[in-house]
Amino acid sequence: MDIDTLTIVGVGLIGGSIGLAAKRRGLARRVIGVGRQRGTLDDALAVGAIDIACLDAASAVHQSQVTVFCTPVDRIVEQVVALAPGCRPDALLTDAGSTKGTIVGGIEAKLCNGVAFVGSHPLAGSEKRGPLHAKEDLFQNRVTVVTRTPRTSDRALERTMEFWQALGSRVRVMTPDEHDRALAMTSHLPHLLASALAGVLPVELYDLAATGFRDTTRIAAGDPALWTGIFAQNRQAVLDSLDLLQDRLTQFKQALQTDDQSTLDSLLAEAKRTRDALGS
Amino acid sequence: MDIDTLTIVGVGLIGGSIGLAAKRRGLARRVIGVGRQRGTLDDALAVGAIDIACLDAASAVHQSQVTVFCTPVDRIVEQVVALAPGCRPDALLTDAGSTKGTIVGGIEAKLCNGVAFVGSHPLAGSEKRGPLHAKEDLFQNRVTVVTRTPRTSDRALERTMEFWQALGSRVRVMTPDEHDRALAMTSHLPHLLASALAGVLPVELYDLAATGFRDTTRIAAGDPALWTGIFAQNRQAVLDSLDLLQDRLTQFKQALQTDDQSTLDSLLAEAKRTRDALGS
Repeated sequence: MDIDTLTIVGVGLIGGSIGLAAKRRGLARRVIGVGRQRGTLDDALAVGAIDIACLDAASAVHQSQVTVFCTPVDRIVEQVVALAPGCRPDALLTDAGSTKGTIVGGIEAKLCNGVAFVGSHPLAGSEKRGPLHAKEDLFQNRVTVVTRTPRTSDRALERTMEFWQALGSRVRVMTPDEHDRALAMTSHLPHLLASALAGVLPVELYDLAATGFRDTTRIAAGDPALWTGIFAQNRQAVLDSLDLLQDRLTQFKQALQTDDQSTLDSLLAEAKRTRDALGS
Repeated sequence: MDIDTLTIVGVGLIGGSIGLAAKRRGLARRVIGVGRQRGTLDDALAVGAIDIACLDAASAVHQSQVTVFCTPVDRIVEQVVALAPGCRPDALLTDAGSTKGTIVGGIEAKLCNGVAFVGSHPLAGSEKRGPLHAKEDLFQNRVTVVTRTPRTSDRALERTMEFWQALGSRVRVMTPDEHDRALAMTSHLPHLLASALAGVLPVELYDLAATGFRDTTRIAAGDPALWTGIFAQNRQAVLDSLDLLQDRLTQFKQALQTDDQSTLDSLLAEAKRTRDALGS
């Protein structure tokens, strides 16, 4: 894959890291960063994540072979639908949003024929925000989910996969619905749990919260507005995952109430096997 | 504080780190490590955590001004009660167990007068085990809880505080019951949650579990037997903390069910404030 002009709409941690990786790996000859805030664009320029900053998304997209939307999930549909008509006939549009059903479905329902949009979600990130935290190896050896629907062309799917692979990512193809159910469990539920735990810690116990508490709640430092948007777009799958977790908590509770140490040990051992299998 | 002979019963991660810190900081002239497994003692010798390995706890304790019990919580009472009669009249006995009510209560109920036992809990550790993971700075700037009861002498309390401070720790004095209620929230509940989350992850989603899932479940890799012992000794306080958490989960659930994004945002924002206040 060899891109003349790559546009990144939204140059935060993810968008900035895409720019850095694309430039360092020679994937794109030039990278245009689109944003609403001059300060963020200046930061992205300063760290070398983009070559050109542009407040006018339409003209940037019009010049680009590939455009990646790295904005909050609740703004992607509207932006893609607005900008797609102005893009080149051979252009590829993709995104980096944490939900896929609402985004891909919303865009496909409104997109004119001939424009190729393929949903993507790189499973990389951090509770930190902004291009100053961008890293060129953010996608290295991480999984990126790329979605396929009946409307996805083989060529667009292939180019999207090549794009993420060129950034160092392993690609897994799923339907938007499969993605959303999986990520409800692996990402959205952990965020909810971390936030619930952080939220019930009384202030007088802050200095007794050591490494274990800090690890378990780290992602609760993520941006509330971004996460409210993610939860809103994946409510049912998150509720289903939460049900599974609450059943497991009930098993722990009953084992504690009845002092059933053998069940407690089994529950802890099963969790350890899974966690050990994930690696550090 | 200047100790001629320090004995550490149980030279795993915590015991080994105490030995390393005591030696590097010149707190003890010599450190005896007591254990049941030659291999572990050899590892502790190899990393320099102890000077002398000893399978005979009684003779080690008899020679020591300070003995620290770093064994699993369900063995500490029995060991202290068995070894205390053989210790020197001026000796200090303490521990590093993650629970305090059962341990301190159990020991005080059985200990002959004149022997000073003060409960301790350094809030440091890791999901890793064994002296090969010991670190001399494990206690540096961490909190150690030291417990006071009506039977705790001022002098023994003071010496225990000095001991942990000499290892780099900040000391907080609490009753055993206060400790157990606090740690149920800051340590035992996070372990239960991390284990519940890891335990419900289906194997086909392992490669979609990224940094967030890994952070949130990291402590679930801890040793099940050790944690079964901790939960068993602090059942009621853990159940109380779990109730608080389940109430919070219900709030999240209702907000999701009714698509109440304003409540969702408030819950996430409250959690973020707490997590930001804890620092990295």
